[in-house]
Amino acid sequence: MRAVLLNTGTELLAGDVQDTHLAFIAREIFGFGLRIEERRTVGDGAVIGKTLGELFSRAEIVFVTGGLGPTSDDITRDVTAELLGLELQENAELLASLKGRLKLRGITWLPSIARQAQVPAGAQILPNENGSASGLYLKANINPGIDSAHVFLLPGPPRELQPMFRESVMPILRLIVKAPDPVERRFYKIAVIGESVIEEKVGQKLLAISGVELGYCARPGEVDLRIIGPSGAVEAADKIVRADLGDVIFTDGDKTLEEVLVKLLAAKKQTLATAESCTGGLLANRITNVAGASAVLLAGYVCYANEAKVDILGVDARSIERHGAVSEEVAREMGRGARKRARSTYALATTGIAGPDGGSEEKPVGTVYVALAEENETDVRKLFFPSDRETFKQLVAQVAFEMLRRKLSAPA
Amino acid sequence: MRAVLLNTGTELLAGDVQDTHLAFIAREIFGFGLRIEERRTVGDGAVIGKTLGELFSRAEIVFVTGGLGPTSDDITRDVTAELLGLELQENAELLASLKGRLKLRGITWLPSIARQAQVPAGAQILPNENGSASGLYLKANINPGIDSAHVFLLPGPPRELQPMFRESVMPILRLIVKAPDPVERRFYKIAVIGESVIEEKVGQKLLAISGVELGYCARPGEVDLRIIGPSGAVEAADKIVRADLGDVIFTDGDKTLEEVLVKLLAAKKQTLATAESCTGGLLANRITNVAGASAVLLAGYVCYANEAKVDILGVDARSIERHGAVSEEVAREMGRGARKRARSTYALATTGIAGPDGGSEEKPVGTVYVALAEENETDVRKLFFPSDRETFKQLVAQVAFEMLRRKLSAPA
Repeated sequence: MRAVLLNTGTELLAGDVQDTHLAFIAREIFGFGLRIEERRTVGDGAVIGKTLGELFSRAEIVFVTGGLGPTSDDITRDVTAELLGLELQENAELLASLKGRLKLRGITWLPSIARQAQVPAGAQILPNENGSASGLYLKANINPGIDSAHVFLLPGPPRELQPMFRESVMPILRLIVKAPDPVERRFYKIAVIGESVIEEKVGQKLLAISGVELGYCARPGEVDLRIIGPSGAVEAADKIVRADLGDVIFTDGDKTLEEVLVKLLAAKKQTLATAESCTGGLLANRITNVAGASAVLLAGYVCYANEAKVDILGVDARSIERHGAVSEEVAREMGRGARKRARSTYALATTGIAGPDGGSEEKPVGTVYVALAEENETDVRKLFFPSDRETFKQLVAQVAFEMLRRKLSAPA
Repeated sequence: MRAVLLNTGTELLAGDVQDTHLAFIAREIFGFGLRIEERRTVGDGAVIGKTLGELFSRAEIVFVTGGLGPTSDDITRDVTAELLGLELQENAELLASLKGRLKLRGITWLPSIARQAQVPAGAQILPNENGSASGLYLKANINPGIDSAHVFLLPGPPRELQPMFRESVMPILRLIVKAPDPVERRFYKIAVIGESVIEEKVGQKLLAISGVELGYCARPGEVDLRIIGPSGAVEAADKIVRADLGDVIFTDGDKTLEEVLVKLLAAKKQTLATAESCTGGLLANRITNVAGASAVLLAGYVCYANEAKVDILGVDARSIERHGAVSEEVAREMGRGARKRARSTYALATTGIAGPDGGSEEKPVGTVYVALAEENETDVRKLFFPSDRETFKQLVAQVAFEMLRRKLSAPA
């Protein structure tokens, strides 16, 4: 069955509010084999009716969000009823419940609020536990002869829509969808390697499997590889992905690289310290976004100034003088020093030139050294990321985390 | 002129990636009197051509995002050229620049990458400083007799699209739009205070000015106040805002709180150190996102473990034992110790319970102490932010930064 989503609200088109409904609904309905085939966003006004008219004839399931409130720009209910030739009727039960809700909160009743108790004839009310605007479910019989569209009118605020969707919409969907197509979805996240390298390795082989749909999504230092298709085909694709990319995949779930790291360290009862110059706290910040980080991150040192590198990490001042603060030697000493000071199993250290200033011919902006220190050895990598400051930091963090992840994942 | 936006990408419809382009583009083009009238989101595939066909006849300006990369699902360029009957030609200059870009980064050249040098006949190339996919500007002459649509094909990653939009798309738009309506827009950013408090202070007064449109946008620990209207009305509103909110506004431009801090510190030639427990490096990370941070941030200490608080910051182990690591006394000692160790003008310290675990009846999850240490005094504030982990960290950082900003902005 074809499903579409219409987001209404001038605030969305003005850029004042970020829509979250598409991502939420897409994930909820995936299990039924349903996908949103198209999403439209339009402002409040007559355009809603025009757009709904088009969508009713294109899809069997139409989700509409927004425009169910009490104010004059909330017209979704009226426009839909008019389009489908349904009379609006005041629902006594809904009216009483609205009045009770407001009284409980000490809010004065206004006549305009009664609009929210208007229900198109034959529509089913979807209760709203978190707001005053009920949702509505109705069938759009506008094209005689073909199946009618199932229409869900849902409130705009996510904290109202989301519980309503799970409690009321999902049970209705369960009844109306035919047995879901056996479409499966696999998802792999890979750090540090670029999307064209990944495609080069597995793209052709995967597309040779009939029915497999591939998707790549790249962020700084990270690529998502998505495979969708009939379950047998996805199974075959999964085998290829694991054989050819196996150890570069850091998760096949929805985890972040730092979540994977914290989990691996915790499982081994090992600990980490960070010594950051050019990443300026990003490593520590990302690690501490993960619940349970306190068990694995013993300390983080942000040592921008050379004095701090010497004072806190015990870097030899002569090394800085001889090789420069951005050098393999200093990265190594920073990693070793942090590990020793924090008494941790591992330490990650970064030193580089984030820019926009501070580069030289020998060491241009973007030059960076990343060290992974452990008991008996310290591995240092030199990289070059000539990017804007935040992207640079993100790319360096990905390299550092991936060095540690591979170390932790390697067979003993 | 009518403007529409088409977001392409199966990852958007699948809910894997959140679109940010609508909000960004809407705000950018506002100054030209342009508003996005409709936004559509479709997956990768033939549907792009069908949708573009509809949009070309409905709007004079069409923005298309995504699908310009090197992989097989990137077909926006091809579909658009086909729809408009334009031949794709390899652009030698673009090919050379692509090759140079990859060489600079030490990335192996793959034949698939050459697709990104294909340009529809007559299209103008929009350079991409932050990625390999160039943007394209072309005119869609599909309906003889009526004005042709201006079409912009833009890359999917926001960090590529946004600079390209500002540098290349805006100058073209400036040429093609008619003179914008004399609508002005002012923008104020306020930290720590909630939007209802702001509305309570100035809302009624501002709305009493004829023609003024108000907007509030709240993020954790930060509110944007937006005023739109005819220039005289906006001028009058600005006077009220400055009189009633003056010292709580940290910028009337597009600066972040950390940018304001780095600028204030640099102007006074003063320096900062951070001592973070519950914020885990977020303070240092945000400060070091600002170019020039190295001149003001001397060191950052992420001291999760009590041992690190004692070892690095010189916190008295007895204070931790007597008052707990999350206490006014320990926050004060962390601030003082960090300042002393880094020899900085100021130090900010945070200690709290981010959760989800670690709370007690006396100190529930969300309890936090923030200290601002300077030469002769240390100010400590106790706060309570029972939120998810990342929001908690963000709220605490806002409080810490705002404490320092007010100190730096106060008349001597």
